[in-house]
Amino acid sequence: MTEQNPPVPAWDTLWRNVHLATLAAPGDYGEIRDAAIAVRDGRIAWLGPRAALPAGARAAVEHDGGGAWLTPGLIDCHTHIVYGGNRSDEFEARLNGVPYEEIARRGGGIVSTVRATRAASADALLAASLPRVAGLLAEGVTTLEIKSGYGLDLATERRMLQVARTLGERLPLRVRTTFLGAHALPPEFTGRADAYIDLVCDELLPTLAAEGLVDAVDAFCERIGFSVAQTERVFGVAARLGLPVKLHAEQLSDQGGAALVARYRGLSADHLEYLSPDGIAAMAAAGTVAVLLPGAFYCLRETRLPPLPALREAGVALAVSTDCNPGTSPLGSLLLAMNMACTLFRLTPLEALAGVTRNAARALGLADQLGTLEVGKAADFALWAIDRPGELAYGIGLNPCRQVVSAGVARAPHGLS
Amino acid sequence: MTEQNPPVPAWDTLWRNVHLATLAAPGDYGEIRDAAIAVRDGRIAWLGPRAALPAGARAAVEHDGGGAWLTPGLIDCHTHIVYGGNRSDEFEARLNGVPYEEIARRGGGIVSTVRATRAASADALLAASLPRVAGLLAEGVTTLEIKSGYGLDLATERRMLQVARTLGERLPLRVRTTFLGAHALPPEFTGRADAYIDLVCDELLPTLAAEGLVDAVDAFCERIGFSVAQTERVFGVAARLGLPVKLHAEQLSDQGGAALVARYRGLSADHLEYLSPDGIAAMAAAGTVAVLLPGAFYCLRETRLPPLPALREAGVALAVSTDCNPGTSPLGSLLLAMNMACTLFRLTPLEALAGVTRNAARALGLADQLGTLEVGKAADFALWAIDRPGELAYGIGLNPCRQVVSAGVARAPHGLS
Ligand SMILES: [Zn+2]
Ligand SMILES: [Zn+2]
Repeated sequence: MTEQNPPVPAWDTLWRNVHLATLAAPGDYGEIRDAAIAVRDGRIAWLGPRAALPAGARAAVEHDGGGAWLTPGLIDCHTHIVYGGNRSDEFEARLNGVPYEEIARRGGGIVSTVRATRAASADALLAASLPRVAGLLAEGVTTLEIKSGYGLDLATERRMLQVARTLGERLPLRVRTTFLGAHALPPEFTGRADAYIDLVCDELLPTLAAEGLVDAVDAFCERIGFSVAQTERVFGVAARLGLPVKLHAEQLSDQGGAALVARYRGLSADHLEYLSPDGIAAMAAAGTVAVLLPGAFYCLRETRLPPLPALREAGVALAVSTDCNPGTSPLGSLLLAMNMACTLFRLTPLEALAGVTRNAARALGLADQLGTLEVGKAADFALWAIDRPGELAYGIGLNPCRQVVSAGVARAPHGLS
Repeated sequence: MTEQNPPVPAWDTLWRNVHLATLAAPGDYGEIRDAAIAVRDGRIAWLGPRAALPAGARAAVEHDGGGAWLTPGLIDCHTHIVYGGNRSDEFEARLNGVPYEEIARRGGGIVSTVRATRAASADALLAASLPRVAGLLAEGVTTLEIKSGYGLDLATERRMLQVARTLGERLPLRVRTTFLGAHALPPEFTGRADAYIDLVCDELLPTLAAEGLVDAVDAFCERIGFSVAQTERVFGVAARLGLPVKLHAEQLSDQGGAALVARYRGLSADHLEYLSPDGIAAMAAAGTVAVLLPGAFYCLRETRLPPLPALREAGVALAVSTDCNPGTSPLGSLLLAMNMACTLFRLTPLEALAGVTRNAARALGLADQLGTLEVGKAADFALWAIDRPGELAYGIGLNPCRQVVSAGVARAPHGLS
C-alpha cells in the first residue's frame, strides 16, 4: 500500500488547499488540515500537510480545493436500486387506510416489484435506475453495491445483474453485484420454498456465477423470508463457488442469521434490529461488519433499535447504507442515511462517516483498495463545502458536495454527461 | 381570476403532453391527463385536456412535456433559511454524550446562531444561504417564506430581511419575509423579557415595517420563548401596522397560542404538537392554517403527534414546510418534509402535496395568486418524471423534478445561473 516517492514527483493530478479526513484508522476522522493530495494512475500517490509537499512537486493538472474538506468517496454497500415500477400506489393506499390484506389481494408488496421487474427490458431497467444512481453520484458516492432479487427466475436475475454491471461501465462508479435469489418466494413456487431453494442452488447461482455476474451472495433470512436451513444451503453453494456471503439478518425477529453468516466468515450482516448477544459475539469473532439500514427502520416506523452499545463494546465494525428499494426504503440519499443513523440510531457523526467509507469498504471486501485516504488506494474521493467533517451527517436533505473524483478523474456533482 | 380566451389565442408559452395536478379544489389532485397549459404575461392563460386546445392556438415558445406530471410550484411557507454558522458542532457533541448544560455553557443553542448571524455581513449571509435555497429551487420550489429572528437587534434583523429580499431579486423565486423578532431573548436582555418586547414593539417592528421589509409577523410562544401576553403585545403592533400574523404555537406545550393567533385572524399556527381542542376550534373559526413541521419533530425525536384527526374533522387546512433552521431542523428538502409528513404524521400523499401548494399559499396569504393551477394565477409550476402525483411524497431523498417554471419562465432544476 506504500510506494517510494520519486525525488521529483511527477503526478497526474494534485489537489492543494484542502483539509483531509482520511479515516485511515478507526476512532477518529484522521484530520489533516491545510493538506494536499496527489494522484498517479488512478491511485493516491501522496498525501500530507501542504507544507510537507516535496520541493518541486508537479502534476499535469492542479486543482485549488478552495479550503474544501476532502473525504474518501462514499460507498453505498447495500442497495436494491435496480428495479421496475415503484410502490407509490401501495404507499398511498396504506395512508388512505386500505388494509394490508386488501393491498396484498390487489397484488401489492414485493410480488408487485417482481412482476414489474420481470416485465421490464434491460433498457427499461437501466432508464429507471439511472436517475436514482445519479442522485447518489451527486452526493459523492463512488462505489455502489447492487443486489438482484426482484427476478427470482434465471432470465430476470441475470438481467438485473447485467444492468448493474452496465451502470458500472457507463458511469464513473465502481459497482459490486450481489446475487439475492433467496430474497422472496416467487409466486409460482407458493408453498414450495424448498423447491425454490433447489432452483437457486442448482441453477440460478451456479449459472450466474459462471457468467461472471456475481461478486457476493446474500439472502433474506426471516420468518417471512427463508429459514436458517434454507439460507445455509445457499451459502454452501456460495462457498463452493468461492463467493463471499452476506445476509439480511434479524430485521423483524431473531432467527440466528447473524451467527450463520459469521460461521461462513461473511462480509456483513445487515439490518440487525433483533440481533442477540450470541449473534454479536459470532460477528465479532468472524470480523463480520454490521450494516445499519436506518431508512427501512424509518419507513417501517420500527421502534426496536439495533443493539449498538453491545456492538461497539464487541468491536464490531458499523457500516451505514441506504437499502434503496421500492418497498421498505425508497431512499436515494446516502447523506440522509447518515443523518438517520445519527438521529434514529444515535450513531456519532464520525461513526456515520466511517460507516459509508472505511467500514462500507470492509462490508464489500474491498478494504484493501477503498474506503480511506492512504497512499496506494484508489483515488476515489469527494470534496465538500463544509466547516468540519461532522457536518456531513448533520444536514438533512442538504448536499454540500462540490466535486467528486473517481479513479483520479474529477467531475462536478451533477456533471454526469 | 378568469379571462376570456381570444378567438385565436396568442400565448407566450405552451406546454403540451403533460398531465396536470391542479389542486384547484380541496379533496383531490385535480388530475387532467393528456393536458396542455399556456402562459401569457407570467400568468396561466389556458389549461385543459389537450384535445380541448382551441383550434389554431399558438405560442411563441412550445414545450413538449414528454408525459411529465405538472403541479403548482412548491411553496415552502415556514423557514429560517438565512443564518450564519451552523450547529453541527452541537449536533456532534450531543451524540458524543456531552450533556446539554455543558453545551449551553459552551455558548451553544440558538444564542450561538444569533452570535454567528450578528457577526456575518450581508454578503456572508447571502453566500451561506444561497446553496440551501438552491437545493429548494432544484426540487420545484417557486415561493419561499423567510423569517428573521437570529438578529434580535435592529441592524441584524434588518440585514436578515434584506438578504431575504435579495434572494428573491436574484433568483427565480418569490420570497415572503416574516419578522420574527420575538424568537428568543437576546443575551443582553437576560432576565428582562418584557423590556425586550418593548424594543420589538417600539422600535424593531415599526422601523422594519416602515422600511418595507416585513410581509408578516411571527413569534415563538412557548415556555422557553415568549408568553401569550408578550406575544399579544407584538400582535397588537402588527395589527396597527396592518400586517398579518402567524405563530410558532404549541410545539413543546399547550400555551394557548393557537387560540391567540386565531383571535387575530392569523394566517397560520405552526408546529402544534400540543394543540388543544379549543385551539383547533378557534383556528377553524378563523380560517387559520395549521403548518406542520415534521422535520423538527424528527430531529427532536418528539413522540407526540399534532392532533390530525381532529384538525381534519374541524376542516382546518393543513400545510407542510421544512422549518429549515440550523438547530432543530437543518432540513433543506421540501419533498423530504412531504415524506416525513406522511411517514411520521400519517398525512396522505394528497394532503402532503396540497400542504406545499394550495394550503401553503393560504398560510402566506397568497391563495388568490398562487398554489393551484387555475387561469389567472401566476404561472409557477414544476414538471416531474413520475407516474402519479402520490409519488412525490413517496420517495425519500429522490428528486424527480425535471423543469421548474417561475412566472412563466422555464429553467432546469439545477440551472440557476
Ligand atoms: Zn436489503
Ligand atoms: Zn420555525
